[in-house]
Amino acid sequence: MISKNAVIHESVKIGKDVIIRDFAIINEGVIIESGVEIGENVIIRSNVHIGTNSYIGSFSILGEHSANYYSGSLNYVNALLTIGENAVIRSGTIIYNDSKIGCNFQTGHRVTIREKTIIGDNSSIGTLCDLQGRLEIGNFVRLHSNVHLGQLSNIKDFVWIYPFVVLTNDPYPPMNQLVGVTVNEYAQIATGSVIMPGVSIGKNALVGAQALVKKDVGEERVVVGVPAKDICSVRDLKNDKDEQIYPWKDYLKDFRGYPWQEK
Amino acid sequence: MISKNAVIHESVKIGKDVIIRDFAIINEGVIIESGVEIGENVIIRSNVHIGTNSYIGSFSILGEHSANYYSGSLNYVNALLTIGENAVIRSGTIIYNDSKIGCNFQTGHRVTIREKTIIGDNSSIGTLCDLQGRLEIGNFVRLHSNVHLGQLSNIKDFVWIYPFVVLTNDPYPPMNQLVGVTVNEYAQIATGSVIMPGVSIGKNALVGAQALVKKDVGEERVVVGVPAKDICSVRDLKNDKDEQIYPWKDYLKDFRGYPWQEK
Amino acid sequence: MISKNAVIHESVKIGKDVIIRDFAIINEGVIIESGVEIGENVIIRSNVHIGTNSYIGSFSILGEHSANYYSGSLNYVNALLTIGENAVIRSGTIIYNDSKIGCNFQTGHRVTIREKTIIGDNSSIGTLCDLQGRLEIGNFVRLHSNVHLGQLSNIKDFVWIYPFVVLTNDPYPPMNQLVGVTVNEYAQIATGSVIMPGVSIGKNALVGAQALVKKDVGEERVVVGVPAKDICSVRDLKNDKDEQIYPWKDYLKDFRGYPWQEK
Repeated sequence: MISKNAVIHESVKIGKDVIIRDFAIINEGVIIESGVEIGENVIIRSNVHIGTNSYIGSFSILGEHSANYYSGSLNYVNALLTIGENAVIRSGTIIYNDSKIGCNFQTGHRVTIREKTIIGDNSSIGTLCDLQGRLEIGNFVRLHSNVHLGQLSNIKDFVWIYPFVVLTNDPYPPMNQLVGVTVNEYAQIATGSVIMPGVSIGKNALVGAQALVKKDVGEERVVVGVPAKDICSVRDLKNDKDEQIYPWKDYLKDFRGYPWQEK
Repeated sequence: MISKNAVIHESVKIGKDVIIRDFAIINEGVIIESGVEIGENVIIRSNVHIGTNSYIGSFSILGEHSANYYSGSLNYVNALLTIGENAVIRSGTIIYNDSKIGCNFQTGHRVTIREKTIIGDNSSIGTLCDLQGRLEIGNFVRLHSNVHLGQLSNIKDFVWIYPFVVLTNDPYPPMNQLVGVTVNEYAQIATGSVIMPGVSIGKNALVGAQALVKKDVGEERVVVGVPAKDICSVRDLKNDKDEQIYPWKDYLKDFRGYPWQEK
Repeated sequence: MISKNAVIHESVKIGKDVIIRDFAIINEGVIIESGVEIGENVIIRSNVHIGTNSYIGSFSILGEHSANYYSGSLNYVNALLTIGENAVIRSGTIIYNDSKIGCNFQTGHRVTIREKTIIGDNSSIGTLCDLQGRLEIGNFVRLHSNVHLGQLSNIKDFVWIYPFVVLTNDPYPPMNQLVGVTVNEYAQIATGSVIMPGVSIGKNALVGAQALVKKDVGEERVVVGVPAKDICSVRDLKNDKDEQIYPWKDYLKDFRGYPWQEK
């Protein structure tokens, strides 16, 4: 079902059972695999490849132009943006050209993802997240709403990051001598924390809410405060039933399709 | 005045003196009462009821689909979204299906309101606020910009919350055993504060800016800091003229149409 | 190149070599100078003047209506919005009527700028910034993403402000007796800081990340913490090569077209 109100360049390749809704605009060189739904008012700029059965929400822009476009160069070319199969890109999301995203990707609304972002499989990026590009995200990562990732951030598999967390990258602003933050597997960074440039957060670590993390955090350590201090091992934490709960992978058996899930 | 460029399903019921602007898309089962204005490029999905004299800003989406929609179920049905009379929904706002909003509702731009949100009368939600659904907001509540309300939040009447405040709900992330925050009548939560899961903020209390609130806050108490400490009664606070100013209901007589306003 | 799918009022004045893309809507009294590109789905309300060679990104709204519009007054009139030459307004940005913006202005995506905002030349406002209006920004100012400026804020030349910083203005919320923040030349305010109402940040000062600034900050001073404390002169700071780096104007010689740039 392709709306008569959509504007589709003649070069666009469209698979079977594709839905394109009213007022969508699809430019040259775009490839849309089978079973994709393109929502109302979506804009797809040139050189975008959308995997099978993906959904692109209304008012999204895929393959957004880089800054060079605006300088009026006649030679401007959009680099390839690839989105894997089964994506759910919610409305208002902007993904720049020149990035590569794996399968089963999900976004909330109005996410921004800039150039040279590499995202693995099964990851999810919440509403209003702001990914500044030149960064890497692994598999099964989950960013809640409004997470800000500076350039050179490196997020390993199964990390969760909560609202308004910022991974910074400029130690001497505004010098712009960037050094990224690394967050290792299974780490949790709670709401409102700021991680300073170059810091590494250890595997299974837990950063408390509203922290300012200036030094590396060791594996399985808990840090809290402004500036953050190391207060205990995650193994010392108990829930309100006095049960151990971290490292969470060992205690969270039934959870949203994770690969170690027991059924 | 209904634009020829709008796409309106034949089942839509439209009252008197309704304006529908260019490129609006209105789906089946929508009811639009008299005097409503639907802005340019608005999308109204199925089963939405918009009250008399309301304004729906450009690029808004009302009745947004739940996650089940994307799994491709043929049986997917949108639940009813009701918006009361005299609403002003500013542009880019997304309100999911299955919520109920009272009269005189106002939003800023690009607000997100998810399913099972109940909002009373005369409340206002600022630009870029992110309401995660399964939550309740009373009457005459005002959220400033970028407030994040986790699921199970409960905001009583006349509460004001300022930019970038987060009401969290997951005490042992990412366990997802949610417990909501309650904010009682007239409380004020200043900019950038984070309220931890299950905390109750007392009536007429004041939470200072940038606080991390881990424990319940008593009625009329002031808390500040990371973590927040109880420092005094709100009755101990004075303005720069050495006047008592809290509880603010007692001192704020002439204010934006509040019901106790003296004229 | 003007799209047949655009809706353009007959009174609009359009210069040479203007591009207007699909589904753009341009209302009465708009003046578009030569070389401007208006992106897809842009809405330009009445009485907007766009300078030469500017780019207006998709889904942006220029000249957004003030609150009085929604009360249904028949006498409502949009005040003039002027945008200087060579602007790059990225997609989803909303700029209200009754503001004046200089040349070489840049925005990220989904910026909000309310009425009575005055911005000088060569300034840049990042993605999702929220400018509440009745404020002033100088020349060569750079706001990173998600900066929130309350009304009456005053930002002098060459200031940089980082993500999620808030300049507040209401000392006794919700009294609404506003007093603005002033940030003087070359000051840097790092990620996540909150500046309390009426505070002045001195020339060349540095506010650390996640600070809560309640008192004036002197020229060339460094403040950190919640609440912020004055810890040293910016001249005491060294980078990882043990080099002095502040005041940054003296050390940052080759940078993005600043007027003192040596080539």
